[in-house]
Formats: sequence, C-alpha cells, structure tokens
Amino acid sequence: MFYEIDRFIKKIKSFLREDQIVLDTDGLSHFSYDATEISHKPHIVVLPESTKEVSKVMRCAYDLDIPVTPQGGRTGLSGGAVPVVGGVVMSLLRMNRILEIDTKNLQIVVEPGVVAADLQTALKKHNLFFPPDPSSTVESTIGGNVAENAGYTRAVKYGVTRDYVLGLEAVLPDGTIINVGGRTVKNVTGYDLVALLTGSEGTLAIITKIICKVLPMPRFRRTCIVYLNDLLGAADFVVSIFDNGIIPCAIELMDNYCINCVADYLSSIELRRDAEALVLVEVDGQHEIATDDEAQKIITLAKKNNSIIESRLASDEVEAERFWRIRRDTLPALKAKGKDHLEADVVVPRYALAFLVQAIKEIEKDHIVKIATFGHAGDGNLHVTIQYRKGNFKETEDAYNVLEEVYKKTIAMSGKLTGEHGVGITVKNYMKLQMTPEEIELLKRIKYAFDPKGILNPRKIFPEYD
Amino acid sequence: MFYEIDRFIKKIKSFLREDQIVLDTDGLSHFSYDATEISHKPHIVVLPESTKEVSKVMRCAYDLDIPVTPQGGRTGLSGGAVPVVGGVVMSLLRMNRILEIDTKNLQIVVEPGVVAADLQTALKKHNLFFPPDPSSTVESTIGGNVAENAGYTRAVKYGVTRDYVLGLEAVLPDGTIINVGGRTVKNVTGYDLVALLTGSEGTLAIITKIICKVLPMPRFRRTCIVYLNDLLGAADFVVSIFDNGIIPCAIELMDNYCINCVADYLSSIELRRDAEALVLVEVDGQHEIATDDEAQKIITLAKKNNSIIESRLASDEVEAERFWRIRRDTLPALKAKGKDHLEADVVVPRYALAFLVQAIKEIEKDHIVKIATFGHAGDGNLHVTIQYRKGNFKETEDAYNVLEEVYKKTIAMSGKLTGEHGVGITVKNYMKLQMTPEEIELLKRIKYAFDPKGILNPRKIFPEYD
Repeated sequence: MFYEIDRFIKKIKSFLREDQIVLDTDGLSHFSYDATEISHKPHIVVLPESTKEVSKVMRCAYDLDIPVTPQGGRTGLSGGAVPVVGGVVMSLLRMNRILEIDTKNLQIVVEPGVVAADLQTALKKHNLFFPPDPSSTVESTIGGNVAENAGYTRAVKYGVTRDYVLGLEAVLPDGTIINVGGRTVKNVTGYDLVALLTGSEGTLAIITKIICKVLPMPRFRRTCIVYLNDLLGAADFVVSIFDNGIIPCAIELMDNYCINCVADYLSSIELRRDAEALVLVEVDGQHEIATDDEAQKIITLAKKNNSIIESRLASDEVEAERFWRIRRDTLPALKAKGKDHLEADVVVPRYALAFLVQAIKEIEKDHIVKIATFGHAGDGNLHVTIQYRKGNFKETEDAYNVLEEVYKKTIAMSGKLTGEHGVGITVKNYMKLQMTPEEIELLKRIKYAFDPKGILNPRKIFPEYD
Repeated sequence: MFYEIDRFIKKIKSFLREDQIVLDTDGLSHFSYDATEISHKPHIVVLPESTKEVSKVMRCAYDLDIPVTPQGGRTGLSGGAVPVVGGVVMSLLRMNRILEIDTKNLQIVVEPGVVAADLQTALKKHNLFFPPDPSSTVESTIGGNVAENAGYTRAVKYGVTRDYVLGLEAVLPDGTIINVGGRTVKNVTGYDLVALLTGSEGTLAIITKIICKVLPMPRFRRTCIVYLNDLLGAADFVVSIFDNGIIPCAIELMDNYCINCVADYLSSIELRRDAEALVLVEVDGQHEIATDDEAQKIITLAKKNNSIIESRLASDEVEAERFWRIRRDTLPALKAKGKDHLEADVVVPRYALAFLVQAIKEIEKDHIVKIATFGHAGDGNLHVTIQYRKGNFKETEDAYNVLEEVYKKTIAMSGKLTGEHGVGITVKNYMKLQMTPEEIELLKRIKYAFDPKGILNPRKIFPEYD
C-alpha cells in the first residue's frame, strides 16, 4: 500500500523528537504483532508523550489519509493492535502516568499507557483496587483494557471495564480533542460516549486520559475447588450458588482435558484426573464471618450436588494461590502440548455454559482436532482452544470448521461471538453469524460519525467481504 | 406545523384497530405532558401492541416525514416525552408484558410498557429484585427508565439502569427492527449499542423489548439517620463510610430548609429542625451479622464526627420506613409551599457535594428566590429546587439566573448538568456550558447515524440555537 510517509515524517519531525519515531526494521517488527501472533509491519511507529502530540500526529495522518493503529501493551487476543494495512502505529506506552488517586471520591485519573499491574500496586497502598484485572496484567495497559472492554475472572461480581470508566479524554481522527463523561458516577448529559468508546477497539478515537472508579479492597477472601463427574452437574452447582443469594467474585470452569493438561504441566500440584469438570469458586468481602459463611455454604452446596467427586476449601492464602495456579496455568499447559491454537472467546447465558461445553464435546467427535474448554462459568464466558498443526492442511481446515461450528452453536444458545477478547481481525468475518446486515450497517454509520475517512485502525470489527 | 396527518391516519388504519388511535381533544391532552408539566398537544396518539406494529407505524411516519415522540409512564422530569412539535405520540403503555423471569440466569425479558412497580412485585415472588428503582415507580415504566437511564437512591451501591440492561430490541426511525446485546452478561461483539440506546431519551430508536439482569433480594437492611450541624461535616461523614470499606445501598442528604419543610408537612414525625444536614444511610446484605456490623460502624463514625448532633439506627422496619418517609416526602413537602419550581438535577464528585450545597447557599444570598437542596449524597447527585412565582416577572428572571449560576458552579466543580433526569427540553439550552461545539457536533453525527431525517423525538437534547 502506498502512503505519503515521507511527507508525514517531515511534518511530525517538526514537533516530535527523533526518539519518538521508530523507522528501523527491528523496531517496526517489535510493534507489528499482538498476543494472537498475527503480524503486519507498520511503516512507522510514533510514541507521543502528551495528548497534544497525539492530536497533532492524528491531524497530520488525517490530512495525508494515512491509517493509524493505536497500541498499548499488545497483549490483546483478537489482533486489534495489529497494523494490518501498515501506515502508522501509535504506541501509547510513553503516556504512562498515574495522574491522580482520589481517595475521597474513589476515583483515579490515568494515562492510557499505565500498566494494569502497576496501577494495582499503586492502589494497594491506599487499600483500593481496580476490579477489572486481565490475566495479562504484567504487560497489559489500562488504555488497552478500556479499548477492548476487558473482563477476566472477577466480572461475575464486579462487572467489566466499562462498569468502571467514568470519563475519557480522546482524540478524534481529525485531531479534535474531546472529553466525554467525567468525574461523576452518574451522568446522563447527552449520549453515553464513554460506553461507546469503551470496547470500540481503537476504531473511533484514541483514548488519551481515563477516569475510573475504584473500590475499597475486600479484606477477606475464601477459595474453594470442586471436582465433579458431570458437566451438567457443574452447571446446577453454579446456579445453586446464586439461588442462595451468593455472588462469588470468581467461578471458573475447566473440562477434563484441561485438568489433565495442567496435571501434566504442573507436577507439583495434585489434580483429580478423573473429573469431568473442575469448578473454582472464590468469595470475598469486608466481613470475615460473612465471607466464611458464604464459603461454607458453597462447600455444603457442592456436597449436596449429585455429581460431586470432591470439594475443598483452601485453608490459607498459600493453598488458595495453588488452586488459582491451576486455572492460570491452563493456557500455558495447553500450549505445552506443542500444537497450534485457534481460540474462541464465546459467551452464553450462565446456565447454558455447561450445555455448550457438552455440545462442543459432541462436535469434537466428528472431527480430528482436539478441543479444550475452560472459562468464566459465572459469566457464561468460555475460552475454546482448538489444537491443530498449521502445516497439516487437513487439520487446519478441520480446525476452522470446528471454530465455525462452535460459533453457530453459541449463537443457537443465545450466545455471542466474543465476551471479552474483542472482534479485531480474528472474529470479524463471523460477525454476520450474529448480526443482520442492517445492524452491521448501523455500526458502520457510527464508525463514519467518528471517522469519515476511515483512517483509524482500519480493517477491524467489520466483516471484510460484503 | 403542517404534517400529512390524514395520509398517515389512512395508512395506519390498515393495520391498527380504532382503539389503538387517539384523535379526540381530551385524549390528545392526556398524552401532551410529563412530570415537568410542560405540555404540547400531539396531532395523534398511537398505541401499538407489538414490535411489528411499532415498525409499521415508524415506516409510515418516516415515509411522510412526520415526527414521532415515544412515551412511557410520562413521569420524566426533563420533558423528554413531550411532543414539542406535535406529530405522533407513540405510547408504549400497551406493550406491558413481562415475557420471562429467568431464575437460572438471573435475567428478565420485558416489554417497555411494564410498570416498574409491577415488575418488582413479580420479581419478589422469586426472591429477586431489579435494583434501579425510581421513586415514581407507581407509574414509571421500564422502557422510560431505560430511555432515561434512571438512577435513584440505590445507585451508590447497585449502579444505574444502564448497569442492568443486557440487551434491547429496538425500532429505527425507518422501521428497521434491530437487536443489540442479548442474554449474556459479557459481550464485546461490536460497539456497545445497548449503552448508547440506554439514556438516549427516545431520540435514536424506539425500544420494544428489554433484557435485564436482576439480583437476589438482599435479606437484611439497616437504616440510620444522622443529623449534623455543618454541611462539610456531612461530607466528611460520607467519605469516612467509604474509607471503612462500607458501600451503603443509599446515602441521602437534605439541607436545613428541606428538613423544615418536611417537619411542617409531616407533623407525625419528629425532626431536628436545627440541623444543617440530615444524612440517611442504609446498608443491606445477605448476612445479618455483617449488615448489623456495618450499621453499627456507621453509627460509630457518625458519633466520632465533629459536627454530629444526633444519630439513630432504626430499631425495626417500621422505624426505617419512617426515616425513608422523610426523604420521600421532601418534594411533596416543598411543593406544599405553594410556589412554582425550577429543578436542577446536577451531579458532582461525591466529596464535592457538600461544597456545592454550600456554594448554592452563597448564591441564594444574592437572590430573592428560595433554594432547597436534597439528593443522593453517595453519588454526588443533587436535586436543587428553586422556588418562585411564575406570575412575578422579577422572581421568574431571578429563578432562571439562579439556575444558570447553579449549573456554572456545578461545572466548575467537575460536575455535570444532569445525573439522572436527562436533558430533554429543560436542560438542552445549557448543554454548551458543559460541552464544546465539537462534542455537540459529534453527538449530532451519532443522532444522524440513527435518524437521518430527524423525525424521532425532535428538539430534545441538542441546544436550540447555534
């Protein structure tokens, strides 16, 4: 693709330093991919350090019709940060200041490049926490979390990123700086552009400042592990928890194959290899007796369940951490099998999750590839990992067929194509399974309202072929 | 204004019954106003009974360029349901079925005309509740609550309507039926049109079906009343509650004037007329000891406060109800003073609320009208009631001057013009105090993406004169 990159460079050099511009091959390679490992090299990477610089860069790109792909920690799982048509990568990593921790109003003001893990550390000192906390916090940035509306394990009780974003400063494709929402927890002045920008995957505007709600850190938590010999029994167990008025802060589910992969991978931890389902449940709160009571009630409910094999309440933080390790090491354990992966991030109504897992087991029977399922049972959000070998044409074709069948089954169960990873490039060509042409058209008109030239993060979200 | 109403009537009579069309003067008057008492008579009222009928009516109106104003229970406080340019009123009151209470997934599916109070009654049988519960539930409809993104007292802990809406079926101005979101608690497939439609005040699409999250009913609640002799002391008291990790389900604030109006109005209840501030705090939960502990801690924090006059924990539900009556009867008590009212629904960061109340007291000193302030202290959402006599030119001018000063002070304190009542027609001409011309332009482009002909609820939200 041909862009007037030379004119662009000349223009931005008038206000950016040399070290804010990357043009060398190694540098460009570094910014070419995200966690999907899909890679496209940009023509240039810019590293703005202020909103004003972001605005000026956008204005230059807008004038010259050069596409711009915003980037954070590049830990995304749908290719949203990959510059698929080249052009400019705008990395927000240098805009990484925590501008304010407002303990009186339980709010923070941060720049998009703040690493989520650093934010949690800073908040901890004030006995506060930011509930949406993706597993990739070591590198993932708040800006990326907002752009993707990240979820993760605590969403069942605490909601997703969108539920915490109160206000945003953002730069439109033509360089206009806008402020939406603000420092109030309620606000109905005009359309909810905060929610619209949150989860818009960098296709509408570049987020340059974020105002978020934070919460007092829960003082107590209890973690239970439950093994069951039947997936539908696991579904009933999950529902029984809510029926008893308990809203855990996490309910995670792993299937038998995942259990065994982790058992192979983590020799230090004993796992029940015979179980059809492992359910990890965590409750938290400010009150010790109440938290203990909830945990005990969960164990009682597990023991009453017809499919129960074993249930255990962690006796201390160390054991709780060991339980969590099982869940956290699931993806590495699957990857250790040495296969290539196709991943789906489907979501169904909570109670339908076990039925979906069962349906996927049925799908697997008719195919040659292996399918692993694990996910956030409290939200109905399932991570489906299809293992195949890229070099093998038959397996590759089979893997993609399985993926489409999983999507179709999900939608048949009133589900959605992606619960927390975003559409990006990996899901976009399946959008028509979920939306009508009129609905996709409406999304496009909204995109047009923000980005009439289509220069911001192009070829994302919308299906490629009409 | 001239519309081709006769052609419109002829068209819709081909699929609507006579009793679904209102044309007589009394009927039209009935649908001409909302709780603001601002009134404009429509040319015709239609009462569709299905999404298909809504779609067909919209198509006819679209073809003939006739404006349509959707209506629910007409309890709104910003004029959103008033047909300011005449044309068609589409009342959704007959689409009032609770289609499903899904206890396994804690979701409900309802039509927009369901009255909020009826929904709560139906949910109670399943030990569930729908947290956003406006005070006008006797008449307010769920559709209206969604269109306005209603808040009310429980928002401090449970959030606003938007936080519960998972999916919507809606009809675009040209009659196209769309479905956005769905039955999953997480969903990042495309832009968040659920949040965009929620709070869009009937200007983007007509909501015809609503899927909401509901929660298990809290089993215990404790209610405290605290009188203080200083507004800033009240602010410190509120902050101290959160500092101790407690998130109450309600924190309401009333100023001295409101306390005295209610004392005049409710002779059966004893009030501290000398107090500068009354703070009502309620905690709830599933665990009795934890809820009791929180309530006790709140009383302890009150007693520690330098401005404390008196604090009391309700000994039972009857006493709690008596405390709530004070708050609920505030507006009637103010109205009983026989004056006309201008109301603002401003919102500031939580800790700024008492400072705003104080600033308003300062404003009052320079004016002849009386100002009452009460509101949701946990959210920073203040209802400012300016009392004046419409017949008196000087008082009327003064009242509007005060209103503008309140708005300006609010914005200076990082606040917003409306926290839960909406912009409608009462706030629209102040929008420029809060937004830049570019931001308003962006909102207009979004409006255009949905409603290129501008026929849906015209003359709302956007400032009248550019």
